[in-house]
Amino acid sequence: MKENEMIFGTRAVIEAIQSDKEIDKILVKRELQSDLSKELFQVLRGRDIPVQRVPAERLDRLTRKNHQGVIAFVPAITYHRLEDIVPFVYEQGKSPFIVLLDGITDVRNFGAIARTCECAGVDAIVIPAKGSVTVNADAIKTSAGALHVLPVCKEKNINQSIRFLKESGIKVVAATEKAVDNYTAIPYDVPVAIIMGAEDTGVSPDNLRICDNIVKIPQFGTIGSLNVSVASSIMIYEVIRQRIIEG
Amino acid sequence: MKENEMIFGTRAVIEAIQSDKEIDKILVKRELQSDLSKELFQVLRGRDIPVQRVPAERLDRLTRKNHQGVIAFVPAITYHRLEDIVPFVYEQGKSPFIVLLDGITDVRNFGAIARTCECAGVDAIVIPAKGSVTVNADAIKTSAGALHVLPVCKEKNINQSIRFLKESGIKVVAATEKAVDNYTAIPYDVPVAIIMGAEDTGVSPDNLRICDNIVKIPQFGTIGSLNVSVASSIMIYEVIRQRIIEG
Repeated sequence: MKENEMIFGTRAVIEAIQSDKEIDKILVKRELQSDLSKELFQVLRGRDIPVQRVPAERLDRLTRKNHQGVIAFVPAITYHRLEDIVPFVYEQGKSPFIVLLDGITDVRNFGAIARTCECAGVDAIVIPAKGSVTVNADAIKTSAGALHVLPVCKEKNINQSIRFLKESGIKVVAATEKAVDNYTAIPYDVPVAIIMGAEDTGVSPDNLRICDNIVKIPQFGTIGSLNVSVASSIMIYEVIRQRIIEG
Repeated sequence: MKENEMIFGTRAVIEAIQSDKEIDKILVKRELQSDLSKELFQVLRGRDIPVQRVPAERLDRLTRKNHQGVIAFVPAITYHRLEDIVPFVYEQGKSPFIVLLDGITDVRNFGAIARTCECAGVDAIVIPAKGSVTVNADAIKTSAGALHVLPVCKEKNINQSIRFLKESGIKVVAATEKAVDNYTAIPYDVPVAIIMGAEDTGVSPDNLRICDNIVKIPQFGTIGSLNVSVASSIMIYEVIRQRIIEG
């Protein structure tokens, strides 16, 4: 995390919030209680910015500047809105191809998936606002710069994003080890979104339930499971194979 | 690199060589010249162990022990021989599926590829003895333990390995951006070996020349190129798709 991706100090963070600056999350020293911190929490009310109470040492590790117990993280990229991306892709006469990540927390996996998405010509990548990766310098580096080019949408509620995609005529397919059908068994030569789940828990049950299809990548070894970035690339290139190579 | 993967000191390294202990490579302090070091180089004669002259500081960074200017790296796994693996797979009534890595140097990429190979049921992974990764603790960690299960062959000469595979009735397919055919264009439902090239230079021209097929993974973005571990997984699962899923 570079220092230019952070805002330090209660007053500075309040001002950033009030001027509608995009903020990924705010860390607040566990025992912080002051008039100014009360003002901070008032300003935060009704806004969807995650706040986390942390020990003072965690803030001290992030910077030597005088943070006064409050540090806000600003995104290293500009986020897009899924509601804007989908009609934009349709207007270009293209068949949308969206990748949703349901709770991927490893920054390197996220960067690697973004890199593959960009190489494959995916239209946008969607991450949830809470419980997901922060798009930081490490993510951008692992993405080989893809995150500067590929639109990233940060959505409040992935379940609502799935519903929106379905209403927009996009087939939503989740990859999960619990599926019966193989990932090659369904056609992708239509507007499509694929959902990949968190490294440990996979796609959440609430999201699986409303997908059009759930599919699995068959595995034959003894160690158990593919890395999520690898699994994503296999899914993404099956879409490419069906759509473009043999389309 | 853990200390138990290293042997320290000229005498200890000489003894390890003489007792035919497997050694990945030896680092020797640049200005080292002694009777004992002469003995070391005599013992090394005719053996295929890479030796690298390095500044003393590099050795000091690796250990605080008294290394006397010589450190040998021992492999964290037991290597297999390709000449043993191929007949073994045939004897089991299986159609061999081998992955060769031509000069992959990034330990994490290597570990990630090994993980995918194990999940896909690849029979063995082949790396060159020189100019490639050392199978160390980081590689094993990234492989999620796959390197403890998947046979790894370390071969003196990848070109000879390709010839051996072809003589054994195995179709050898290289992935390279220079190819005309897409990776899905050729049949893999036969004994097959795929070759993936180094992160920067790809499969070497000498090796490309003798492969049965060269294929490319099509790309549509602006940043240029897929990560080699991702490209490997796309190739590997195309084999699985043709052989098992739709076979």
